Amino acid sequence: MPGNTFGQVFRLTTWGESHGPAVGCVVDGCPAGIEISEAFIQRELDRRRVGQSRVTSARQEPDQVQILSGVFEGRSTGAPISMLVFNTDAKPGHYDTIKHLYRPGHADYTWDAKYGFRDWRGGGRSSARETIGRVAGGAIAKLLLARYGISVIAWTSQLGDLKAEVIDESEIERNIMRCPDARVAALMVERVEQARRSLDSLGGVVEVRARGVPPGLGEPVFDKLQADIGKAMFSIPAIKGVEFGEGFGVAYMTGSTHNDPFVRRDDGTIGTASNHHGGILGGISTGEEIVLRIAAKPPASIARPQHTVDRAGNPAAIEIHGRHDPTVLPRLVPIAEAMLALVLADHLLRQRLARVDA
Amino acid sequence: MPGNTFGQVFRLTTWGESHGPAVGCVVDGCPAGIEISEAFIQRELDRRRVGQSRVTSARQEPDQVQILSGVFEGRSTGAPISMLVFNTDAKPGHYDTIKHLYRPGHADYTWDAKYGFRDWRGGGRSSARETIGRVAGGAIAKLLLARYGISVIAWTSQLGDLKAEVIDESEIERNIMRCPDARVAALMVERVEQARRSLDSLGGVVEVRARGVPPGLGEPVFDKLQADIGKAMFSIPAIKGVEFGEGFGVAYMTGSTHNDPFVRRDDGTIGTASNHHGGILGGISTGEEIVLRIAAKPPASIARPQHTVDRAGNPAAIEIHGRHDPTVLPRLVPIAEAMLALVLADHLLRQRLARVDA
Amino acid sequence: MPGNTFGQVFRLTTWGESHGPAVGCVVDGCPAGIEISEAFIQRELDRRRVGQSRVTSARQEPDQVQILSGVFEGRSTGAPISMLVFNTDAKPGHYDTIKHLYRPGHADYTWDAKYGFRDWRGGGRSSARETIGRVAGGAIAKLLLARYGISVIAWTSQLGDLKAEVIDESEIERNIMRCPDARVAALMVERVEQARRSLDSLGGVVEVRARGVPPGLGEPVFDKLQADIGKAMFSIPAIKGVEFGEGFGVAYMTGSTHNDPFVRRDDGTIGTASNHHGGILGGISTGEEIVLRIAAKPPASIARPQHTVDRAGNPAAIEIHGRHDPTVLPRLVPIAEAMLALVLADHLLRQRLARVDA
Amino acid sequence: MPGNTFGQVFRLTTWGESHGPAVGCVVDGCPAGIEISEAFIQRELDRRRVGQSRVTSARQEPDQVQILSGVFEGRSTGAPISMLVFNTDAKPGHYDTIKHLYRPGHADYTWDAKYGFRDWRGGGRSSARETIGRVAGGAIAKLLLARYGISVIAWTSQLGDLKAEVIDESEIERNIMRCPDARVAALMVERVEQARRSLDSLGGVVEVRARGVPPGLGEPVFDKLQADIGKAMFSIPAIKGVEFGEGFGVAYMTGSTHNDPFVRRDDGTIGTASNHHGGILGGISTGEEIVLRIAAKPPASIARPQHTVDRAGNPAAIEIHGRHDPTVLPRLVPIAEAMLALVLADHLLRQRLARVDA
Repeated sequence: MPGNTFGQVFRLTTWGESHGPAVGCVVDGCPAGIEISEAFIQRELDRRRVGQSRVTSARQEPDQVQILSGVFEGRSTGAPISMLVFNTDAKPGHYDTIKHLYRPGHADYTWDAKYGFRDWRGGGRSSARETIGRVAGGAIAKLLLARYGISVIAWTSQLGDLKAEVIDESEIERNIMRCPDARVAALMVERVEQARRSLDSLGGVVEVRARGVPPGLGEPVFDKLQADIGKAMFSIPAIKGVEFGEGFGVAYMTGSTHNDPFVRRDDGTIGTASNHHGGILGGISTGEEIVLRIAAKPPASIARPQHTVDRAGNPAAIEIHGRHDPTVLPRLVPIAEAMLALVLADHLLRQRLARVDA
Repeated sequence: MPGNTFGQVFRLTTWGESHGPAVGCVVDGCPAGIEISEAFIQRELDRRRVGQSRVTSARQEPDQVQILSGVFEGRSTGAPISMLVFNTDAKPGHYDTIKHLYRPGHADYTWDAKYGFRDWRGGGRSSARETIGRVAGGAIAKLLLARYGISVIAWTSQLGDLKAEVIDESEIERNIMRCPDARVAALMVERVEQARRSLDSLGGVVEVRARGVPPGLGEPVFDKLQADIGKAMFSIPAIKGVEFGEGFGVAYMTGSTHNDPFVRRDDGTIGTASNHHGGILGGISTGEEIVLRIAAKPPASIARPQHTVDRAGNPAAIEIHGRHDPTVLPRLVPIAEAMLALVLADHLLRQRLARVDA
Repeated sequence: MPGNTFGQVFRLTTWGESHGPAVGCVVDGCPAGIEISEAFIQRELDRRRVGQSRVTSARQEPDQVQILSGVFEGRSTGAPISMLVFNTDAKPGHYDTIKHLYRPGHADYTWDAKYGFRDWRGGGRSSARETIGRVAGGAIAKLLLARYGISVIAWTSQLGDLKAEVIDESEIERNIMRCPDARVAALMVERVEQARRSLDSLGGVVEVRARGVPPGLGEPVFDKLQADIGKAMFSIPAIKGVEFGEGFGVAYMTGSTHNDPFVRRDDGTIGTASNHHGGILGGISTGEEIVLRIAAKPPASIARPQHTVDRAGNPAAIEIHGRHDPTVLPRLVPIAEAMLALVLADHLLRQRLARVDA
Repeated sequence: MPGNTFGQVFRLTTWGESHGPAVGCVVDGCPAGIEISEAFIQRELDRRRVGQSRVTSARQEPDQVQILSGVFEGRSTGAPISMLVFNTDAKPGHYDTIKHLYRPGHADYTWDAKYGFRDWRGGGRSSARETIGRVAGGAIAKLLLARYGISVIAWTSQLGDLKAEVIDESEIERNIMRCPDARVAALMVERVEQARRSLDSLGGVVEVRARGVPPGLGEPVFDKLQADIGKAMFSIPAIKGVEFGEGFGVAYMTGSTHNDPFVRRDDGTIGTASNHHGGILGGISTGEEIVLRIAAKPPASIARPQHTVDRAGNPAAIEIHGRHDPTVLPRLVPIAEAMLALVLADHLLRQRLARVDA
């Protein structure tokens, strides 16, 4: 009920607060027999880590993962996989002076409205540190998907009005913006530094893709593949928009321009001649590339003075110092990949249930 | 697993195919004591019905609802509410000639890929008739919400490049496009007729709002209010994009322009001075209006000849005659309202579980 | 949440009240491709039906099943299967005089305590008519299991102090007690008639078995096979005890007498030399016969005067006339089979998720 | 799906293997505002601990609990509560010589049948150490229940043919058998030592009670209170029978002797004059004491030579040395309490959803 678990068959539960002793997760439903590489999980966590570059928060956390269960002699056993990362650079003191104030754009007020009080240290459970569990769980999902030739990838496609014009995927992990266009990436970094200097933050768009997805994944009614992916993406902090294929552009299209003709591919399988649909029809994967974009709002934590109220409703001014990201985009890339991997792992397994002769 | 149920606490299960004997639903988790007006449910179904106007399909279905359980002396008893609508104008013969062809933009191919075969009569379970159960269930949700002063509303805001410029809500149900701008509505109708004449179809955007939502609804991690609403919207056939508040516009904003300052309202409660956030922060409602938009692709069924393949992969030409909508927008309005109502009813009840002293 | 759905993957939802217009169910998660015989479902319902013999209630209901969805050209499609039986012999007037009284042993008081009011007509949702949905759903489960060589069977093994001494399974459906011992069956019938004459009712025990269950079904922690079967059995009205294998007899045993030695069977597979464990070890099936017994209390509806109170707590006398069973045992047999079949179908499918190479 | 989570609203997930680095759990759905006493949780774990007395295993584990999340300033926050206990006395070497043999009465064979291989160290996930998470989670449930005046208690009522004749609850925690009859407890201890000397083990019965449960808890169909409690009990390793109230004794009773008359109690509330029903009618609590008994088989690990087979099916002899319990009863007491507390906490919260005006 309280929504700390994601997935139906391949299930991820995350736990932990920003300034508590640790954060972690339990992956349940991973089939027995997957080779689990702790090094791979660590690498994924490193991609998500703060303090990596001048465009992210300065908080220093090694984010060293420990696997506590569910793996035996290097393979998943079918039992739940518990993973944990201790928090080492928690500085709750940073939040002492603002603990009675509602930070604009943050969950402080709504959390109080919901629960009556809150762990005010660094956003508590609403902190981006919660996503550590997502990335660790997503890494397990990626290992499962890899076994079936499925991969996910994401990149920064837009920051403010700067848009990637060239998609060179080999470039993505080479620049700190994770933008596939080296030239635009450099402009983006400049723009982020400008924002930081002016005590402000920036929004943007991340593009997410999945390849090698066989036709047939997804359930045709409420658990359409796009519905579960949509939920996954909107569950990531800061996401305000999600679109598939032509996305909001469909409003300007007609059936005759949007419909993708079915064709026989050279290998004899059936596909579509174009991919306006973004890899999903009727909620079920077509075998074409899955294509989506997500819009992230500018981070709410800005050092500039803002108007707000305290818990009693009294007007107050607030300045949020501390270690914050002026853009979430580069760190959003691995998180979005993780969430997409989780959905695909779930539906890959669910597909085993669709036919009497599986 | 197969995803025919939506919601955690207030749960809707739909069943039924386009050309089977009936379609229906079971609402489970409706608390005891709600006054259930069959007339209200019927009215909602009538809004969704085909054959209503010259912008929708010509199939004639009275869609007369029967309540079979869970209501006693006019009130919900806490037991599951089963509702049913018999199909009366099914014409499966319409589909006989194309049953071996994959209609572009439809779920024929993916359904075959998933299950090995399919009920090819009118799209079977992927038909828009499945949404009858959603609207009936959504009507129960609306009755629950009304008790707590919560309402939902939706309207057609864009068709092609035609956008509503005036938002006069009293106008919505007065025109067959359900557009709140009478002038633009007339242009839209014209555009739809044009499309029909040219054997084509049109995409567009529907705007959805919820009012009176108290602060505190939604769960802070995976079941964020926007995540569950996002899933609900992406589960509706034809939806390719969903955005909240400023939506994809956030990419162009900064923290200082996007953050909504908290203020004390005249009645002493806390609110925000603006509503860029669209009524949800950290996954939890703020008490401000919930604002979202959904993009619907142009209906895939068009009478114009299209290229496709048959089940064996052989190239074929297809023309889809029959009774189809050149735009889904006017019928999407009640469906989107129903889905939003279902999510809100679910989270309204889930909020009862948040605190020890509820 | 309200618990009208059973199962995780193969899911049954039942709905309907004793004296409402209909009762029914939705089976969701049945894989595509099962041959669905309406005649078989009807036969199972006929076994559960009242008015069959002088040991059951005299209510006359044809219990004619209608399949409304999920089946196309005789096979399951993967879509939800909706089934419905109209109530034809409802006589709510029978309950008019006692609607303010709490029948001893019934759910009247607890239902009021839970919901604040209740549908008092014939027990409403707590009626045995709710089990129609179980038997219809269980019939689908049996059809799935049959495909994999799995069968379930049950019989009356004890009524009062009368116990079946001979287990002749071919006898079970030949006598109205469904007792595999013809001689004891005759004594049981006599005992039931005696009870009816003395305006009383009788408890007893039903034995339930499953055969052909492959090793490996069941989940090792909370969803142990015996845990899910235990829940299934205790969800049947009137059941007060459930035991597997040696059951409560284990209290008198030692490890050396209870442990079943593993052996290699003639066909090369592994089994156990004895079956004290009742077919399940560590929550997972061993391949041996699954053996359990369930104890049913004497039906609470007796025509003899009883002491009780009304809704206000005032002492009252009550006599329950109407059409009631002096024993539930013969009708419990198909219900217990249905519930066991539902659990096995669920775990049979869940087993597909256990290994990476399924 | 894999069944490592228990409960619908108040949810417990356990993870961890006997000889892995740690075992633990996540409690999700605990409402905000409960005072969480780590000392109380530790005390409950101490009751479950091995090495406590000469009737339990000699493995030495401090079982020191760490709370890693979900608690702030001594109170639950509404976020998941993660708890962990490191394994310190793991001796996997003990299992080296028998890792290819199937221990009779254990889950070795069935685990292999299910997953293809297994963590053979000390039973892996099937070890009694898994119950640490249950007891820690059950402690949180007890803290919630205490707030509403609900308590659970359990005791050893039978070992072999020795049955408690006196129920002096103050005696339970005073003797190492947790038997409420001091005289019989002494006989039981003697009997256990005898069994240990003869390299054998003993079965028995534990009685479990809940008090202060308000009328109205439980759901009337599949999630009957007895169904969820039955599942909880059958999920505990070694349990082969569960019965409520008169249990299997109902087979010998008549409606007129079994029905409990409703009466008005002195305080004006409604109750029953007797409690044959064991506190639940129609799946819903009556307000009377909840009464059940569970039968535990003799522990399967015995040092005596036994016949078995190896993984290839070859006959083999096995002797299980190591640190094992000759009876599970004293340690079963806190585990059974924990499971009952978990079910009641879940249904206590679910009851908040039953009525429109909660």
